[in-house]
Formats: sequence, C-alpha cells, structure tokens
Amino acid sequence: MSNLISQEENFSEWYNGIIQLADLAENSDVRGCMILKPYGYSIWENIQKILDDKFKKTGHQNAYFPLFIPKSYFCKEASHVEGFAKECAVITHYRLKNKDNSIVVDENAKLEDEYIVRPTSETIIWNTFKKWIQSYRDLPIKINQWANVCRWEMRTRPFLRTSEFLWQEGHTAHSNIEEARKETLQMLDVYYNFGKDYLAIPFIKGIKTENEKFAGAEETYTVEALMKDGKALQCGTSHLLGQNFAKAFDVKYLNKDNKLEYVWGTSWGVSTRLIGAIIMTHGDDKGLILPPKIAPIQIVIIPLDNNEQINNIVNKLNSDLLDNNISVKIDDRDYLRPGFKFTEWELKGVPIRIVIGKKDIENKTLEVIRRDENSKFSISIDNSTEILIKLLSDIQDNIYKKALEFRQNHTFEVDNYNDFKDKISNKSGFIISPWDGTTETELKIKEELQGTIRCIPFENNDLTVENNINDKCIYSQKQSKNKVIFAQNY
Amino acid sequence: MSNLISQEENFSEWYNGIIQLADLAENSDVRGCMILKPYGYSIWENIQKILDDKFKKTGHQNAYFPLFIPKSYFCKEASHVEGFAKECAVITHYRLKNKDNSIVVDENAKLEDEYIVRPTSETIIWNTFKKWIQSYRDLPIKINQWANVCRWEMRTRPFLRTSEFLWQEGHTAHSNIEEARKETLQMLDVYYNFGKDYLAIPFIKGIKTENEKFAGAEETYTVEALMKDGKALQCGTSHLLGQNFAKAFDVKYLNKDNKLEYVWGTSWGVSTRLIGAIIMTHGDDKGLILPPKIAPIQIVIIPLDNNEQINNIVNKLNSDLLDNNISVKIDDRDYLRPGFKFTEWELKGVPIRIVIGKKDIENKTLEVIRRDENSKFSISIDNSTEILIKLLSDIQDNIYKKALEFRQNHTFEVDNYNDFKDKISNKSGFIISPWDGTTETELKIKEELQGTIRCIPFENNDLTVENNINDKCIYSQKQSKNKVIFAQNY
Repeated sequence: MSNLISQEENFSEWYNGIIQLADLAENSDVRGCMILKPYGYSIWENIQKILDDKFKKTGHQNAYFPLFIPKSYFCKEASHVEGFAKECAVITHYRLKNKDNSIVVDENAKLEDEYIVRPTSETIIWNTFKKWIQSYRDLPIKINQWANVCRWEMRTRPFLRTSEFLWQEGHTAHSNIEEARKETLQMLDVYYNFGKDYLAIPFIKGIKTENEKFAGAEETYTVEALMKDGKALQCGTSHLLGQNFAKAFDVKYLNKDNKLEYVWGTSWGVSTRLIGAIIMTHGDDKGLILPPKIAPIQIVIIPLDNNEQINNIVNKLNSDLLDNNISVKIDDRDYLRPGFKFTEWELKGVPIRIVIGKKDIENKTLEVIRRDENSKFSISIDNSTEILIKLLSDIQDNIYKKALEFRQNHTFEVDNYNDFKDKISNKSGFIISPWDGTTETELKIKEELQGTIRCIPFENNDLTVENNINDKCIYSQKQSKNKVIFAQNY
Repeated sequence: MSNLISQEENFSEWYNGIIQLADLAENSDVRGCMILKPYGYSIWENIQKILDDKFKKTGHQNAYFPLFIPKSYFCKEASHVEGFAKECAVITHYRLKNKDNSIVVDENAKLEDEYIVRPTSETIIWNTFKKWIQSYRDLPIKINQWANVCRWEMRTRPFLRTSEFLWQEGHTAHSNIEEARKETLQMLDVYYNFGKDYLAIPFIKGIKTENEKFAGAEETYTVEALMKDGKALQCGTSHLLGQNFAKAFDVKYLNKDNKLEYVWGTSWGVSTRLIGAIIMTHGDDKGLILPPKIAPIQIVIIPLDNNEQINNIVNKLNSDLLDNNISVKIDDRDYLRPGFKFTEWELKGVPIRIVIGKKDIENKTLEVIRRDENSKFSISIDNSTEILIKLLSDIQDNIYKKALEFRQNHTFEVDNYNDFKDKISNKSGFIISPWDGTTETELKIKEELQGTIRCIPFENNDLTVENNINDKCIYSQKQSKNKVIFAQNY
C-alpha cells in the first residue's frame, strides 16, 4: 500500500502522496478545486470548533453575507480591485437552455452588472456596515464568517492554493485606530497561540512589507511557518484596514461630540491551508503525523484476533477512553492483514496505535506504538487509560518541540551576500538579513533569487533579532532599515 | 420601536417586519440574496449543532465538494438538468480587466465548459462516488455536506426562497434498494423528530406525488408544516434516488458474487428555510417566539437599577444559569429605557425575561415574563434557577402543544368540491381529500385553485387518514387512489 516517496527524493511528490494515501483530499474535474474527503474535512472541523470558540470568547459573533459581489462594489476600493480582479470567477448569466439537443447558456438571461464570486468579503460587508453604523454606540462591531471563497489562481496545489477554499474571515469596525490596531494584534495572537497550543506549529509573528500587504489594508500582520523543505508558508493574516473601506463605502459614525467621523476597520483570516501546514511541519517518510489535539482519531485499536477475551478488553478500553473524551477507532476489519492496517494508520498520522493479541492477554499488557517517534512498547492493561492520556499530551509537546528545533536549526542570520544567495537558492530556511526598506530592493531579490520577505519580525517572538545602527542592506549595501526574514515560499 | 403590523392585517408584512425588527436578516443588493445577521445566524448555528450530532450518530461523515459544477456533469441526468437549468448562476469568465477607465469582463478569459454554481450536489458527488466505489466492501457510503447553494428563483422571500441559501445535503450510496429506502426513511425521521423535539413544530410525514418529486429521484419523502396563515411550508425532503445517478455517472460495484451492479442512492436536506418555519409557526403580533431549545438567548435579565445589591443578584443568577448551560444575556445598557428593552426582547422572541428592581430586592423575588403566554409573575430568588429551568422546559412543551392544536384545528377532511374550493381559496389549512392519482387532476387543481398536493400522508402520523374503497376523487369524481393533503403553499 505505502507507495509514499521520501521527502528527500521529491518533497512535492511526497506532499501529494500523503494527501492521497492518507485520504485527506483529491483533485476534482473543476479547475483547481479539490474534494475534501471525510478524514481531511474532519481535521478542518476540529480547527473550526477550537477557533470558533476563541473568536466568541473574544467577543465576536458569526454572520453570513452573500457569496456574490456586484462588480460595482468590488471596484470601489482601488487597490482592492487591483489585487483581486485578475483572478476571479465571474457570473454573467442566470439560465441555461436547450438548443439543437444540447444545453447552452441562454443569452437572453444576461446580468446587467456581473457578479464576482467572493475572493474575500470586505466590500459587501462594508457596504452593509454603512447601514448598521450610525453612532459610537453601534461600535465596535465584531463579526466573523465561515465561508467558501474563490480565487482563480493559475497554479494550484491542494490545501495551499486552490481556486475555491474554505476559511474564516473576521471583519470588525471601530471608532478609533488604537482600538482597531489592538483588535488586529489580538487576532494575530489568537492565531499564534492556536498554532503553538493546538497545531504544534511554532509560528513567527511579524508585519508585512508595503509590497506584500493585503490589497486595501494599511498594515498586514502575519504568522509564518517553516516547512520541512525549507520553504515558508504564510499561515494566517490580520489586517489593519485603516479607514480605506470606510471611505470607499462612506461609513461614518457620530462620535460623542456629535461629529461625523470615518470608521476604522480590521479583517483577519485563516483557511484550510492550515492543513497543508500541518502536513509539511510534522509529516515524515512514513506519512502524516497529526497533533493529538486536532487529530480526528487520537487512538486506533487493532485487535489481532476476534475472540471474547480480546473483545472484552478492547470494548472496556474504548469506553474508558471515550469517557475521557479521547476519540478512538477500533479497526476490526477482518478481511485485511494487520500489517496493512498498521501502514494505513501510520500514513493517516494517528498519534497512538494499540495492538492487542494473545500474548498481551497472557501478560495483561497492550502493545503501544507512538507515531511521532515510531517507537513500540508495552504498557499494563490495568492503568492504561491514564498512561495513554499522558502519552497524547507528551506527543503534542514533543512534536512542537521538534518543529521548533527544526525551525531554529534552519534559521540563519546572514550579512554576506554570497552566503545569502546560496542559502536562499538552496531553500535553507528562514534567512534574517538587513534590508534597506525599499520595494525596489525587495522585488529585485524576488526576481533574482525567488526569495521573498516573509515579514519584519516582532520583538516578542521566540527568536531574537537585533538591529544595529551599522547594518547595511544585504542587497543594496545602503543603510538598513530593519532586519527582515527572507525565504522561498509557497 | 415596535412597528410590527398584526398577522391578521397583513401576514406577509408581519413576516417581513419580524425579520427586520428581530434583527434576523436583511436584504442585500445582490438579487434575491439576504444577509444573515448575527442573531438570525446564531439560530442556524444551533440548528446545525443539533442536526450535525444526529447525522454523526446515524453513521454519517461530513465532507466538502466543489461549489462549481461543470455544465457537462450537470446535464448527465435528464430530469435533473430539466429541473434546475432554468434558474442557475452561470460562470463564464475568470478575469476582469481595465478598459477605458472602467473594469469590465475580460473576454480573453472565457471558460470552455461553463460552470454552474451548485443548486444541489448530486452530480458532482456521484461523479466522485464512481472513484470511491469498487466493491461491496466500499458500501454504504454516508456523506453529509454543510454548504451554500444557489437557485436563481424569480420571486424570493427571506429564509423561504432566496437565490443563495445555506443548507445541509446528505448523499449516500448503498448496495441494495432496501437499505437505500431504509436510509431515506431514517433521515426523514431525523427531521421529523428534530421538528417535534427542538423546533416545536409538528410536521406531517408523507411521500410526494410524481409531479412534486425531486428532479432525479424515484421517490421523494417530505416533512410539511402548517403556517399560521393557513399556508403549508415544505420543511425538509429525503429522496430515494434509485439507480438514476449511478446510471448517469456509471457507478457500479462488484457484489459478493463478483458481479457488477449499479449502486443505489439517497439524498436529503434541510435549509435556513427552517428559520422561516419557526417564525410562522410560533410568532405572534408582539414578535418572534423562539423554542427554548434553539434560542440563542434563553433568558434575558434586565436590571432596573445599577447598584451593588442588584448587580450581585444578577451576577449570581447569571453564573448559576450558565452552570446549567442556560444561555443568558444581561441587558444593562444604561442609555435605554426599560420599556424599550422589554419591547426589543419580546420582538426577538427570548423565551424568558427577568426584571429586577428595588421592590424585588425587598421581597427577595424576581419578576418573570414568559414570552409564549405573555404572562408576568414573581418567583423567589432562592430557588430561581430550578424554577427557570423547569419553566424553559414548560415553554418548549407549550408551544409545541399550541402549534399542534393550531394544525388540528386547521385540518379538514373534505369530500365535497364546493367546500374544497372554498377552503383552499381561503387558505383554511390542510385539506384532506380523495384524489384519483393522476398528474392531470393535480395540475388542474393547482391552476384553478392554487392548491397543491403537499403529500400522501404516512399512516403513522399523529393524524389519521382512512382510505375507503368508495372514495371518489374530489375533482374528477373518478375512483380515488389515495386521500392526500392539499393546501396553498410557500
């Protein structure tokens, strides 16, 4: 069964192999759109459940806005339309008809103003905020939407970049910039902590350069992760929109002094791309490795025989684990060999596999295999539930620690251009180098080396970047403005 | 604030008034699409949570399929395309461009095979099932999808019929018709019981006529409800697809005898229309009345003063209720008069309002208003939590009882055509009459009286319909095939 190519041989094929063999998703005939299969979708459901709870605890409410955006709205914010118009699905008609025994578009059912399938919802939401906001008493408004969006990307890859994808988009409105910036940073922290505490991914927090920021934002903040092939993946963004959309849609409020002012906005989102991040942060040559806290199946039990003694133990263990909110799968398919099952659950990244056979009954033990270390050992049946709960927690900690070590070992401070060039070209990881602050330099490095600025890192990251007055830009040799993080990226 | 027109004066305006004044939804500029506001959306979230759990407990898994359906798939099942082609959003292009300083569709970015925005997903799912199913061991497959769908309806009404709406669609594949029919009926029962136990709506279960069945199904089962204006609302359907989609997409499996057979299918769905059903089943002239089990706010507490004594009691009550998983809102907005707040929460249909003022402190009581009866009484503070929990349960039972009584009082067995005509024209409710079983008769009654056959009711409904050998069709006077339920409908 396992035809998984090794990461070293071809990382990209390894990635596609995992998606197929672990049953996460498959390509569809619809250009650039994937089908999220039950196992892959259930990871997304777990992500949704946890984040939704965090959004609500920080005072947000869910709502739902139309999928279709009138072309005229979409064009109101200049840099926004500039950023999205080149890759959007356009609805022009609303009917099909029969013609010469085939079904064709009915030209009599043409729309006057075409609709765009939302690539993101700022325009339709700010058009609505205009109706919702009159006075300071209506502020803040803190909305989140779980939705599908569509960006007609030329090159697509499952989870990382698809024509349609699932995400959440937060949209908030505030009476002043301080509160809006606080919100922007708060939601970045929600993402950062979600990465650390649930996905076991050590994100780096930072701010995007002018060139990399969101089309329509004043400031874009990001959480960036390093994949096992040394490429960076942007995992979530949080935007301070300033008054851009308020001005484009004329959204004003009466302040306490009874004066009209434009409203301040934020937006922030993460998507099914996070599943790509999990695959490429933790996976190994045997398959997927899922963090226990978001694994749809945390423990799989494989009985080697079908007899009363074994079944009793399996059922008892299952019910004890369920009582502790552990999700368990009993794999009792009798038409498959155990070896086949081991490989399958290994590929699917289930954190703990338990095997129980005749010998275990005699010894009153269970055989346990932890996926993160691929290690095998026996535990006593008597206090197995307690041990297994502890083990899940250890695995969660261990894979975070490993990912952090990997990132640390693949992060380099470089101030020599040859070294920089070499490290970027070889996808060595995160390269921290001084930069003169100009878009010109940024674009030249992108063009010549495929290296992009992932972010200007925050100071309170678990990585320390010290700027020095004598720092010279790695490319132009001009006075450095900031040390920034470069990498090749997805 | 309350400008709600009475149900008697104009039911349709009353309905629209509730949606606006209770802050459930609003119209958007996108043709026939509404914006689900936080309060309205949170009702949908509660519906989702409960149903999702029931789907999983009956062995279904969630997945996600593309929003876009290639026109060619869509055309593979003849009656399916016939049913949906007249009202679908068509994507023809994937780019906009600048031209003469305005943004227009880029004619160089035209799709070869147009995409349809899914009106339902049978075609794309059966195209996928073909890849998932080889042998009997792959069956059954039991999938559910939470999604947005699009039907370009000519006349739209919020929640009842919108161009885009939110729903769930179950899709299953089986090795034989018995199992498929069992699934179809099981899911109908899930809907029926959800209506009874959560929405407090007494559905009638039945089977649709040939004319009213789903485009592509062999048999369509339905749950129908009676609204307070005497019109029927179809609230959920469950379809036995037979082998229609299996044949259209060539989905076969190897049976135990190693022979290839076509797979059997079902599909079933409910949508945000259920919120319309709640409004029109329970609402009164003062506004919405929400069943406690799906109310986003079950109890609202309105303190009449802001002082330590009152605040202490409010906070204690709040935390006691939260401990019992009751959702509570404390309305302490100091810039609004209590009368305004009462009207607002009444409009929003919160099951219980609690008012607490100086006199209550002295008497150690709380003033309680139950929304269903609009009755006011005092309860002792000491055992208030217990009383309130019991009260929520009483309200849930009471509104179901009232809705059932309403339906019973508006259900008539009629065998005289003049009486039938009169009752249908006056929207008197469910009219049970003998029918000759022909589509011809069905369509004539629809044309002449706007009465449609809602269903051929099951025998195990809480309404008994007895067929008699001498029954004559209400319209044609021919031998009756079945007594069926007629009504005007949404």
